[in-house]
Amino acid sequence: MNIHEITNPDFLEDMNTEQLEKLSADIRAFLIESCSKTGGHIGANLGVVELTIALHKHFNSPEDKILFDVGHQAYIHKILTGRINEFDTLRQYKGLCGFPKMRESEHDVWEAGHSSTSLSAAMGMALARDIKKEDHYVVPIIGDGALTGGMALEALNNIGSERTPMIIILNDNEMSIAPNVGAMHNMLGRIRSNVSYNRAKYDFEEMIENVPQVGAKLRDIVDRVKDSFKYLFVEGVFFEELGIKYLGPVDGHDYEELDTALKNAKDFKGPVLVHVVTKKGKGYTHAETDEIGTWHGLGPYKIETGEVLGGKSTVSWSEFVSNTVLSHAHEDERIVAVTPAMPVGSKLTNFARTYPERFFDVGIAEQHAITMSAGLAAAGMKPYLAIYSTFLQRGYDQLLHDVDRQNLNVFIGIDRSGLVGADGETHQGIFDISFITPLPNMVLMMPKDEREASQMIELAFNHDGPIALRYPRGNVNGIDDEVTYPPLELGKWENISEGDALTIVSFGPTLELVQDVADAFKKENININVVNARFIKPIDESMLHELGQKNQPILVVEESMLEGGLGSMIGSFMLDNNYKNSIERIGIGNEYIEHGNVNELLDDIGISFDNIYAKAKEMVNQDNEEN
Amino acid sequence: MNIHEITNPDFLEDMNTEQLEKLSADIRAFLIESCSKTGGHIGANLGVVELTIALHKHFNSPEDKILFDVGHQAYIHKILTGRINEFDTLRQYKGLCGFPKMRESEHDVWEAGHSSTSLSAAMGMALARDIKKEDHYVVPIIGDGALTGGMALEALNNIGSERTPMIIILNDNEMSIAPNVGAMHNMLGRIRSNVSYNRAKYDFEEMIENVPQVGAKLRDIVDRVKDSFKYLFVEGVFFEELGIKYLGPVDGHDYEELDTALKNAKDFKGPVLVHVVTKKGKGYTHAETDEIGTWHGLGPYKIETGEVLGGKSTVSWSEFVSNTVLSHAHEDERIVAVTPAMPVGSKLTNFARTYPERFFDVGIAEQHAITMSAGLAAAGMKPYLAIYSTFLQRGYDQLLHDVDRQNLNVFIGIDRSGLVGADGETHQGIFDISFITPLPNMVLMMPKDEREASQMIELAFNHDGPIALRYPRGNVNGIDDEVTYPPLELGKWENISEGDALTIVSFGPTLELVQDVADAFKKENININVVNARFIKPIDESMLHELGQKNQPILVVEESMLEGGLGSMIGSFMLDNNYKNSIERIGIGNEYIEHGNVNELLDDIGISFDNIYAKAKEMVNQDNEEN
Repeated sequence: MNIHEITNPDFLEDMNTEQLEKLSADIRAFLIESCSKTGGHIGANLGVVELTIALHKHFNSPEDKILFDVGHQAYIHKILTGRINEFDTLRQYKGLCGFPKMRESEHDVWEAGHSSTSLSAAMGMALARDIKKEDHYVVPIIGDGALTGGMALEALNNIGSERTPMIIILNDNEMSIAPNVGAMHNMLGRIRSNVSYNRAKYDFEEMIENVPQVGAKLRDIVDRVKDSFKYLFVEGVFFEELGIKYLGPVDGHDYEELDTALKNAKDFKGPVLVHVVTKKGKGYTHAETDEIGTWHGLGPYKIETGEVLGGKSTVSWSEFVSNTVLSHAHEDERIVAVTPAMPVGSKLTNFARTYPERFFDVGIAEQHAITMSAGLAAAGMKPYLAIYSTFLQRGYDQLLHDVDRQNLNVFIGIDRSGLVGADGETHQGIFDISFITPLPNMVLMMPKDEREASQMIELAFNHDGPIALRYPRGNVNGIDDEVTYPPLELGKWENISEGDALTIVSFGPTLELVQDVADAFKKENININVVNARFIKPIDESMLHELGQKNQPILVVEESMLEGGLGSMIGSFMLDNNYKNSIERIGIGNEYIEHGNVNELLDDIGISFDNIYAKAKEMVNQDNEEN
Repeated sequence: MNIHEITNPDFLEDMNTEQLEKLSADIRAFLIESCSKTGGHIGANLGVVELTIALHKHFNSPEDKILFDVGHQAYIHKILTGRINEFDTLRQYKGLCGFPKMRESEHDVWEAGHSSTSLSAAMGMALARDIKKEDHYVVPIIGDGALTGGMALEALNNIGSERTPMIIILNDNEMSIAPNVGAMHNMLGRIRSNVSYNRAKYDFEEMIENVPQVGAKLRDIVDRVKDSFKYLFVEGVFFEELGIKYLGPVDGHDYEELDTALKNAKDFKGPVLVHVVTKKGKGYTHAETDEIGTWHGLGPYKIETGEVLGGKSTVSWSEFVSNTVLSHAHEDERIVAVTPAMPVGSKLTNFARTYPERFFDVGIAEQHAITMSAGLAAAGMKPYLAIYSTFLQRGYDQLLHDVDRQNLNVFIGIDRSGLVGADGETHQGIFDISFITPLPNMVLMMPKDEREASQMIELAFNHDGPIALRYPRGNVNGIDDEVTYPPLELGKWENISEGDALTIVSFGPTLELVQDVADAFKKENININVVNARFIKPIDESMLHELGQKNQPILVVEESMLEGGLGSMIGSFMLDNNYKNSIERIGIGNEYIEHGNVNELLDDIGISFDNIYAKAKEMVNQDNEEN
């Protein structure tokens, strides 16, 4: 079997264990080699080689529905469904998506980049099957980390009571993105360490049979004991209590064990959960021994040494912000840090080491993270919550109903704001401005560089009420100065270039591009006013009044959705005040943005030197004609 | 004890059981009487009279933190903390809030209108206490329904693993708003029906001791059995598995039992859950025998008969929409209905009766409801999901990441859109337009009357992609005609009054008010163009181009947040296209809207005849001056 010739998984049906093991080795070698060039979620995928092959052997995709939770562990699935020769374009512009993608293959029946959605989706598909009286399996694969997400637990509760037939594969790799936390994780650990219990059950039954004489009262108890065996010895009592049959634990790298478990699961009529224990990074030492999540998702690496190549020379935004927060924590004991399963991604590891008792990794539980922060604030603490923009969506109601409505002192670091690149449309941080600005009490900021970020963090810890700091993926500008800057004034924008021909308003990393455009115009003796709208909420009304009175044309450039964005806020303000400025906007229209290099994506959107220059030129000329 | 003289709960400390029972009876009589005039959440409160009194006897509020989940069951708490004489203003404009409210009392340490937030908030408060080395109790009270909300489960998982000391009161009333569903509910039922197990445990230990001769192997098993007693006989194995000590079940109307349980709970060092079984409506027959949730939250009623007074003469919007959906379901077997615990509120009871196998009440689980609908759609069904606007916030990421991004055929009925009145700021449906319109694929509609609603429902079931219908609280207009109207064209607005002096754009129930204003102007021979913006997304670009070309002044009136609202969309569109129309907006500014009669609230916001008339007049005059 040449793995480069695979077009669909049908060939698996006739393979014996030896052949399957050979196939696993080939796929593993391919993944290690291929991802060393493109980067990707190598660790998670190495852990599910045998499991994915076994699933495609036992189930008949796409008639049977195989759903990958989160979806970054679907590489083997992509290989088995005929996409191996596209792996050199993985996560690149117009290339193979790093997650399941319906338009790539009929075998991708569900798309996910955020965690914990697969059980709900699977229940929907299973209910549809039963209503339509179809006959096929629905098989969601969910990690132990994703299982702690609230919506997965909501789904378990519903699946168990409706007894909706499906085969849930619990991929327990003892580590999701960061080391797992939470009571469920502990529970799974207890199960893993007690594999002999199942056998003991039968021995015990025998013993009970042999108790010679028991009175009526004790007989009753004995009967109850027998009824209760599932609670006594079956490890999955947590799932059984929810009405879901538990099978396992199964060694996820052993084809014989997988075979038996999947056959048993297929014979069961209601919902069943197969607990599969896998090892993340299996078969590649550097990934296998990773204890902090470096090998979760990463760029190209050197195969022999495991050395991650490039891009680590300067300080990342996450690192800069988290360490600045930490320096404030030295001075103020009320400052605590909260993360929903992203201690490494958000670079809170220093904080965690320094103040373990003031650091809380709550696991994949964004809703809980936000409202727990609200509780901390209500009790007089100053919580700093680091969360990726795209995952903040998961806690929108908590942000509104618990934090903002109660006007509590929660400081939110919105990491990965703006385009994120390779992770693509499920991960772009482009909606937060639109959904945060309608919240009455919130302050929303984005710095142009790390110096301003410091000022904003200072402001945040002195602010009364909810406040958020957006910062992008990638590295800080690298400003190296020792100057102490005066504190920022809330809601005050900054002119970073003077001029009367046109005003361009922007914020964050885009300002650098805008400044380049202004510099180019300067060479043509056209002076452009560049405004750093570092406060996205509240907007700087006094500056806008000034621009309104001058009837200055305004171009707003924003790496965010146009709908509900800064440009629309400025436009509304001007209209409300009867100014007649020309106002134009460059940003993200009515579309999702797929994966690719951020610069390529920005080009597509029109956040490029050429496009901003052209639009500015047009506005300057039009303004000259009118005057 | 005259209950009208209570200023704080200190007096409870010295009361004996007899006195407490007298007090309970007095409070119960007061509540039945008082709520018969004002309306309110009478059922839930009658169920927790003894429990709330016991909590205030055993804990020292506000030093000890008592947090009510959802919060509509805090009436007794309000009475015990000195607010009994404000109950005649309950849920009225500027009156006593129907939920805990920090500004009302220092005893209200947490506000909640949405469910399932209390455990996360309590964990935040408990962590803050421990960091600050303070010494007090944190006591969240959560219902069995709210416990199925994903964020509560996230919190349990985190509390159990961190072993954060707190006393969780599980108020198990067998019915939250609608009859409870879900595996956890079933589990609690099993516990309630097995109260003798705890005693059996000791008998069994005795029996094991008496087994005469056991070999080494069996001895090992017996030892394990003893270790496993908590799994065998302790009813709360589900909670114990999560690391939370379980106590109960306790009769929530028996002071002696409550006394013992709360004392035990206070002695325990880690997190403990006290399972209290209560009866919703306890002590008032009409509420006690309610099986469908009528007595959850309601208006004034006649005490003797339980007859609900007024307001039931015509058809509610929920009823109209749900029954119209049902009529489509007769024709199309792919139509299924989903509700997160609101079968009665959303009036889906007819649907449930008619097509039980195509109806799904998933319990308080908004996230799961939305993604399960996405799964149903992905499998070829046409799910209709009825959800209140304010609760849709809870599933924002699911709406974005699962439904909209995958462009699935989910039809969402957004019930209680706009101001809801007595439930106040936690329940106003005023954010959905702002958070939905940035989603690229979504269609968002709001009908002016039930005739148009029918057309929209027809459109929705024929539409390819996600689509949502907003409809308000309250009753339909009462149009009684048999005319068949032509299908609506997607995105096409309607002129409901012609004129050139000014264009007023609005949608939904507000249009009636706007039409009144136009009629008033007509008497002054000023003709106003009234536009029914029945599609909030997509907006009617061709009509807007027309208005732009005519340089027509436009006034937008919207019962929704201005930020990210229809007015800002229209403004942005006009600016993008270089039109110079005057555009003004009336709607909700940067504030939360508290409880009160909807008309009083609208007056405050400026959505009143007088204010719209005045603003329109100003714009007409200004336009005349300019031309």
